[in-house]
Amino acid sequence: MSAIQVKFVDKKIAYTGEQLRSHWAYRSFDILGDSAVAFIGPCDVRPEFMKDVEDLKAASRIYSEEMLHFIVEHFGCGLDEAVLRQRLLIAIMAENLNRRDLKGGVVTRSGSDLYDGRLKLTVSIASVSPVSALIHAGINISSRNTPVPTRGLADYHIEPSGFAGEVLAAYSAECDGLLRARCKVRGCE
Amino acid sequence: MSAIQVKFVDKKIAYTGEQLRSHWAYRSFDILGDSAVAFIGPCDVRPEFMKDVEDLKAASRIYSEEMLHFIVEHFGCGLDEAVLRQRLLIAIMAENLNRRDLKGGVVTRSGSDLYDGRLKLTVSIASVSPVSALIHAGINISSRNTPVPTRGLADYHIEPSGFAGEVLAAYSAECDGLLRARCKVRGCE
Amino acid sequence: MSAIQVKFVDKKIAYTGEQLRSHWAYRSFDILGDSAVAFIGPCDVRPEFMKDVEDLKAASRIYSEEMLHFIVEHFGCGLDEAVLRQRLLIAIMAENLNRRDLKGGVVTRSGSDLYDGRLKLTVSIASVSPVSALIHAGINISSRNTPVPTRGLADYHIEPSGFAGEVLAAYSAECDGLLRARCKVRGCE
Amino acid sequence: MSAIQVKFVDKKIAYTGEQLRSHWAYRSFDILGDSAVAFIGPCDVRPEFMKDVEDLKAASRIYSEEMLHFIVEHFGCGLDEAVLRQRLLIAIMAENLNRRDLKGGVVTRSGSDLYDGRLKLTVSIASVSPVSALIHAGINISSRNTPVPTRGLADYHIEPSGFAGEVLAAYSAECDGLLRARCKVRGCE
Amino acid sequence: MSAIQVKFVDKKIAYTGEQLRSHWAYRSFDILGDSAVAFIGPCDVRPEFMKDVEDLKAASRIYSEEMLHFIVEHFGCGLDEAVLRQRLLIAIMAENLNRRDLKGGVVTRSGSDLYDGRLKLTVSIASVSPVSALIHAGINISSRNTPVPTRGLADYHIEPSGFAGEVLAAYSAECDGLLRARCKVRGCE
Amino acid sequence: MSAIQVKFVDKKIAYTGEQLRSHWAYRSFDILGDSAVAFIGPCDVRPEFMKDVEDLKAASRIYSEEMLHFIVEHFGCGLDEAVLRQRLLIAIMAENLNRRDLKGGVVTRSGSDLYDGRLKLTVSIASVSPVSALIHAGINISSRNTPVPTRGLADYHIEPSGFAGEVLAAYSAECDGLLRARCKVRGCE
Repeated sequence: MSAIQVKFVDKKIAYTGEQLRSHWAYRSFDILGDSAVAFIGPCDVRPEFMKDVEDLKAASRIYSEEMLHFIVEHFGCGLDEAVLRQRLLIAIMAENLNRRDLKGGVVTRSGSDLYDGRLKLTVSIASVSPVSALIHAGINISSRNTPVPTRGLADYHIEPSGFAGEVLAAYSAECDGLLRARCKVRGCE
Repeated sequence: MSAIQVKFVDKKIAYTGEQLRSHWAYRSFDILGDSAVAFIGPCDVRPEFMKDVEDLKAASRIYSEEMLHFIVEHFGCGLDEAVLRQRLLIAIMAENLNRRDLKGGVVTRSGSDLYDGRLKLTVSIASVSPVSALIHAGINISSRNTPVPTRGLADYHIEPSGFAGEVLAAYSAECDGLLRARCKVRGCE
Repeated sequence: MSAIQVKFVDKKIAYTGEQLRSHWAYRSFDILGDSAVAFIGPCDVRPEFMKDVEDLKAASRIYSEEMLHFIVEHFGCGLDEAVLRQRLLIAIMAENLNRRDLKGGVVTRSGSDLYDGRLKLTVSIASVSPVSALIHAGINISSRNTPVPTRGLADYHIEPSGFAGEVLAAYSAECDGLLRARCKVRGCE
Repeated sequence: MSAIQVKFVDKKIAYTGEQLRSHWAYRSFDILGDSAVAFIGPCDVRPEFMKDVEDLKAASRIYSEEMLHFIVEHFGCGLDEAVLRQRLLIAIMAENLNRRDLKGGVVTRSGSDLYDGRLKLTVSIASVSPVSALIHAGINISSRNTPVPTRGLADYHIEPSGFAGEVLAAYSAECDGLLRARCKVRGCE
Repeated sequence: MSAIQVKFVDKKIAYTGEQLRSHWAYRSFDILGDSAVAFIGPCDVRPEFMKDVEDLKAASRIYSEEMLHFIVEHFGCGLDEAVLRQRLLIAIMAENLNRRDLKGGVVTRSGSDLYDGRLKLTVSIASVSPVSALIHAGINISSRNTPVPTRGLADYHIEPSGFAGEVLAAYSAECDGLLRARCKVRGCE
Repeated sequence: MSAIQVKFVDKKIAYTGEQLRSHWAYRSFDILGDSAVAFIGPCDVRPEFMKDVEDLKAASRIYSEEMLHFIVEHFGCGLDEAVLRQRLLIAIMAENLNRRDLKGGVVTRSGSDLYDGRLKLTVSIASVSPVSALIHAGINISSRNTPVPTRGLADYHIEPSGFAGEVLAAYSAECDGLLRARCKVRGCE
């Protein structure tokens, strides 16, 4: 029994924010139920699909020439739980990166962001649709031409699809473990 | 505004599991509302206070000569959210440890457990009371005489109260960030 | 992926009401997570384990010489959902029975009770533990010496373990279908 | 006290899917609160009102020359509970049909669908609005010109308004019973 | 349709806190479902039934020679909603009192407490059982021998049973209005 | 620690209903999180922003030449809780008004409306966005040219900004008190 289905999509998809909607994995890849899907492609979020009101207010550009994207959907999950799951996914990425030889780099997590020193590696948002919770997490492959100083997987010579597979597997194991944990505990007084 | 109140208690308290109940922080330290309290003391959980049914079935002993303990309480929080918060707290501990000089050790997180290789550093449980969610996380200070092979903060020459203060501050910042994140996001389609 | 684990226990267990508690399937049969377990045995519910306050007020006796029992546990499920699931389980039993040759009998469902004319076939209750929802449904095998006029599976020459297997399979399929249904639907205006 | 208000509308209404929205019963018939409304009319669901993403993906046509429709709305009800209520409504229809002389037909329920052998009798969906849960269940009156082989009430010589009244009464009684059940039970350990 | 059943009990009952449990109205007066029951009697809450941990910590005595008590139970209602309902009940009492001739007194509400200047009129608590939310509100009839300076209905020459009837009717109307309000509103963007 | 941030906006804003959307306070005044914002301005709600379906059905005009408006947003709050909070806010307004010299007027609350005899003082609605609950409460300053007979703060010679400040402070204190109440209570049996 696996609590979540995961998939790495082996073709380029440009992330525009439009993908962050309910049933995107079901419509695109016939994955019904909780899912985590990863793919590679540029990132340029159109304002109508920006979900972070802070970004909207600041008219921030969410842009990267090439990113590894994760789209996660959990049904029957509210926003409080969604932001927690988002943080765990980001923590899992950091844990994976720091087990690798980063050529002197060290990745630190600050909430839902990953940094190497002052260089930003990721963008991420968690939101809710009428029927599910949705998470987007993108980690730069390329660090060129980004709106803020960044680093990317290419700077560390990390192959994106292999990294994606490991992160998907770890998030899937985490979800299984979370389900086991909530099913084996008694209540307190 | 801080989403959670934190406190390091500067006196020894033996953890027996009895502390994992609603309002322990309010009754003991007059902290009303969400809280994370750390203290140092031995750990020997009495069966009637064991909340992990897996441990009860296996008649496991949850024992340590000296641990740094964290007791976290979140009101209006269900079990699904509690196990997620527990994992984040454990991830924060790992992140803190791996920023330090561990004399060659590397800490890895597996669900709610921390390991250095095959040596276990922590015990942890998340549960719910009728009015709140409760988390216990204990990290060994001493690694002597434990039921399974372990390592502890002393093995890394880490001073427990300083570590406790950093973890409490990081968890508090995480809680503030989680609240901000859920308050600044729009819904999806 | 199966939403629920099912098991027919091939030894007699006397149902006293004590079985209607969280983690009974996990403690007894090492089934972790949502479960439906069936077994055969007498039924005599002790007052301290009676959950129906109507029965407690009336000092009703819940008794049968031999019943087929189903104990269902759903984690992360509240009481409103539990009573709905209970009704579906009972409806599934009725659907199964009426597909068989009942020697002139016809089973009708009234809420969570099954009747053949005025003869009662079942007892059932749905409740909640601090961490899960729990359902007991018992259908008479024997109809002798019951507190009210009843019929039982033996009166219809129905072999209990076969019937149990079919009901467990149908309830499992129902749970899978319910999960698919909630994961494939969009919201309305 | 009745948990739900029911009404059979004695004029033809063409079901297009547009009716599956919050407050349709309140706007159309001044029924405020939980409701189940039945009416007769053709069925031709326009894609923008299709809520089942499986149907949208398959570009299915949801069509019938004449159906008996039920629109149910429950306020303060989530999607998990809505799909359970939908199944119960469908089970109630099957129970009613099988108590009648179906001229050799036997109705079986498979999830939220009713069949007579391989002939489909119904279409149904459960969804949520921002303030309520909504269920549509339609049972064929006519079985002519349907996209898949079907049977309808006319094939069984069942008068639709009488059937509607019985199903509405049974669903109303079920809702009352569910409310009583959840209000008379104690918690478990 | 009435959202809640109300009853004034015309015999003395000593309030000890034991009455603040699920199904008290059902067990005592056969009222199944949401209820508000009022009665007259002394008040002396035994520590094991004190639900306010602040009172337990302070070892407060909750005592009155004669009070008018209200016990309210709402099923399917959490603690956040329960404390809101408690405040509304107290506000309703204040509104009723201030419409009367209080011989120069003016009642002010501070959270869940009513005061006339510095004199306290009420005690109140809201809590949750495993299946419902429970509220106790007591207003002094007599103001003699109370642990803190108080006033009571007798000091204002208010007849308790008439006052009880008016408060019960107003709370019942409030509950009906709340239900209507939640059922007639659309969602926002 | 304050559970809610409050602000009186010292410039005129015409209330059209468009303000009743998620993050209005964050977008307009950079207030992130739960908030109550008051301002003065005319009121003329456009039909597309009317949330009360009763008003929509009746094609009611929600109009006032000059009102004091309150916009309240609570994150992680459902509709049942929102209508309760709305009532408390209205009760707070009534309590404040009746402590003043109303030149013979007496304010009574009927659900979410305030009246002085048959003259209406307020309009109010509570709704939910995908991420929060929203409340609008407007109290007339001017009572001229209103669709129904009304009174306004000017008729009582009450200065609106002072009244706004007191109501905001009282609602903020109420929210703090509600949070403390839910955090200091134990569960019942």
